[in-house]
Amino acid sequence: MTTNTRYKNRPVKAEDGEEKEYVGFATLPNQVHRKSVKKGFDFTLMVAGESGLGKSTLVNSLFLTDLHKDRKLLNAEERIHQTVEITKHTVDIEEKGVKLKLTIVDTPGFGDAVNNTECWKPITDYIDQQFEQYFRDESGLNRKNIQDNRVHCCLYFIPPFGHGLRPVDVEFMKALQDKVNVVPLISKADCLTPTEIRKMKDRVREEIEKFGIKVYQFPDCDSDEDEEFKQQDRELKESTPFAVIGSNTVVEARGQRVRGRLYPWGIVEVENQSHCDFVKLRNMLIRTHMHDLKDITCDVHYENYRGVSAKCTNVNVVTDMYCF
Amino acid sequence: MTTNTRYKNRPVKAEDGEEKEYVGFATLPNQVHRKSVKKGFDFTLMVAGESGLGKSTLVNSLFLTDLHKDRKLLNAEERIHQTVEITKHTVDIEEKGVKLKLTIVDTPGFGDAVNNTECWKPITDYIDQQFEQYFRDESGLNRKNIQDNRVHCCLYFIPPFGHGLRPVDVEFMKALQDKVNVVPLISKADCLTPTEIRKMKDRVREEIEKFGIKVYQFPDCDSDEDEEFKQQDRELKESTPFAVIGSNTVVEARGQRVRGRLYPWGIVEVENQSHCDFVKLRNMLIRTHMHDLKDITCDVHYENYRGVSAKCTNVNVVTDMYCF
Repeated sequence: MTTNTRYKNRPVKAEDGEEKEYVGFATLPNQVHRKSVKKGFDFTLMVAGESGLGKSTLVNSLFLTDLHKDRKLLNAEERIHQTVEITKHTVDIEEKGVKLKLTIVDTPGFGDAVNNTECWKPITDYIDQQFEQYFRDESGLNRKNIQDNRVHCCLYFIPPFGHGLRPVDVEFMKALQDKVNVVPLISKADCLTPTEIRKMKDRVREEIEKFGIKVYQFPDCDSDEDEEFKQQDRELKESTPFAVIGSNTVVEARGQRVRGRLYPWGIVEVENQSHCDFVKLRNMLIRTHMHDLKDITCDVHYENYRGVSAKCTNVNVVTDMYCF
Repeated sequence: MTTNTRYKNRPVKAEDGEEKEYVGFATLPNQVHRKSVKKGFDFTLMVAGESGLGKSTLVNSLFLTDLHKDRKLLNAEERIHQTVEITKHTVDIEEKGVKLKLTIVDTPGFGDAVNNTECWKPITDYIDQQFEQYFRDESGLNRKNIQDNRVHCCLYFIPPFGHGLRPVDVEFMKALQDKVNVVPLISKADCLTPTEIRKMKDRVREEIEKFGIKVYQFPDCDSDEDEEFKQQDRELKESTPFAVIGSNTVVEARGQRVRGRLYPWGIVEVENQSHCDFVKLRNMLIRTHMHDLKDITCDVHYENYRGVSAKCTNVNVVTDMYCF
C-alpha cells in the first residue's frame, strides 16, 4: 500500500457491477498493518528442559543470533546446589523494515538436580509474575506504553532417548498447561532413526492424550484457504511433536554451506526436512502462528489469570470487611 | 597341551645347556588352564543408568544375545510409582569349548522418577546381599559348589548430552565405588560429533578426578609385554570413558552386513572403531580384563565387605556379652 492509495477517495465497484462511493473503511486492515509495522512486534519465548538438550543452540538456530555466547557451564557440584535460575535475553531483530523485539526466557537448571520435586515452581511463578505486572499496568494510568512481558510460548524439550514421556515431563507440562502455550519438542533428534522418531512421536502423542495434558493446539484451517495451504496445515499438525536438531556451526554439504552437524558417517542438515522438523517449527513459530500464540496468551491464559486473581481479590475484600 | 606331554617325565634343558631331570611343575599353568576349562567360567555384569540410554541394546550387542526380548516398557504413570526393580538374566555361552555363564543384572528404573534421592540404595543393597550370601556359603560346609553371584563389574551409562556429569551421576558412582568395579560409559554416542566426544571425555575424566570418584582402574601393563600390546593398552586407557553405541539391527554398509543404525544421513556401524569405542569395551570386558575384574572383586571389594562385616559381628558379640 502506498501513501497515494491511502488518501484517495475513489469509487469502488460493487458485486453487482454498480459503482458505489468509496467510504474508505476497506483500508482498515491496511491501517492496522501500517500501525503494527510502526509500533513493532514483541514476542516472548520460553525454553525449558534438562540441561544439554540443546535449548540455546536451537534458539540460536531459529533466530540466527548468539544469545548465550558468554555463558558459563556449571559442573556437577555447582548443579547440586543450584536452584532453577531464570534468565532473560532480549534482542531486536529487523527484517524488511519489520521490527521484532524477541525475548528469550531460559530456565537453565531444570531437571538437573537429584531431587526434581516441584522444580517447575520457579517457572510457573515467573509466568504468574509477568501476568501480575501486566494486570497492574493495565489497571493503572498511562496504559499506552505498557511493556508486555507475558510469556507467549514455552518450548518444552523432551529427551530423545527414553520410551515416551518421563514422569517429570508429564508433571512439568501439567503444571504449565493453564498458564502458557506449551509446545513439546523431541530434542536432539539426530540420535533417532526415522522409525524411532515415528514411534516416539506416536507414544508422546498417546501419552499427552492419556494424561490429559493440554499442549498448544493449532487453530483449525479456514475453509476458504487454498488447497496447498490446507495440505501444509495438515502436515504441520501430523508432525507434532516436532523432532528437532539445532546447530551453531556451518558445514559444507552437497556443495553448499549449511547449518549442520558433521559426523564420521554423514552430515546432518538442520534445515533439511528429511532430517528433522526444524523448518516446520520455525515456520510455525515465526511465519504462521506467532500471532495466534499471542492471541491465545491474551485471550485464554491471561484471562484465566485475571479470573483467579479477581476471585482472590474478592476474598480479600470480604475478609477485610469482616476484620474491620 | 596333549595328554602325552602331561604324563611324560622327560629331561629338560636348563639355561646353561645342562640337562636337568624334569619334575613337572612346569605343567601347573596348563593344569590350571585345563581345570578352568572343565569347570567353566562365570561373570556377573551389572548395567545401570537412566531408562532409554541403550543398556539392554548394548548388552545384546556385546554378547550377541537377546536378553530382554519380552520386556514390557512402562509409561510415565507407571514409572512415577515404580521403585528401582532389579532383574537378573543368565545365559550360558560356549565358544571353542570354553563355557561362560553370564549373568546380567539390570536396574531398569534408575533415575526415572521425579525425586531420585537415594535411588541407588536398592542397587547397593543388592550388591551387599550377594557378598553376604557368598560370605555365608564360604563360612559353611560344602564350599566346593558355592554359587558366586557377586557383581564383578557395573557399566554405568552417562547420558551423552549434558555438559559432563550430573549430580545424580556423581552420587551414584560414589555410592558404588567401594563395592563394585564401576566402568563409566558415554551412552548413545551417535549424537555427538568427534569433537564433542573428545570434550565430553575430558570433562568426565576431570570431574571423576575432582570429585574423587574411584572407577575401575586398568592394571599397569607388564614391562615384558611386546610393544604392540603396550600400544593397545595405552590406547585403551586414553579412550576412557568409552563412548558407545549399540544396535539390535543388522544393516548393509559397504557391501557387508553389520550391526548398525540407519540414518537418512548415513550408517553408524557399531563395530567401526572410527565411529565409537564399542570394540574397545568388548575387548576390555571379555578378552583382556575379565579376569582382572573378577580378581579385584574378590581381593578388594569382597575383602572390604568382609572387613566391615567382621567389625559389625564383633560389635554384636560384645553387645551380647554385656546383655547377658
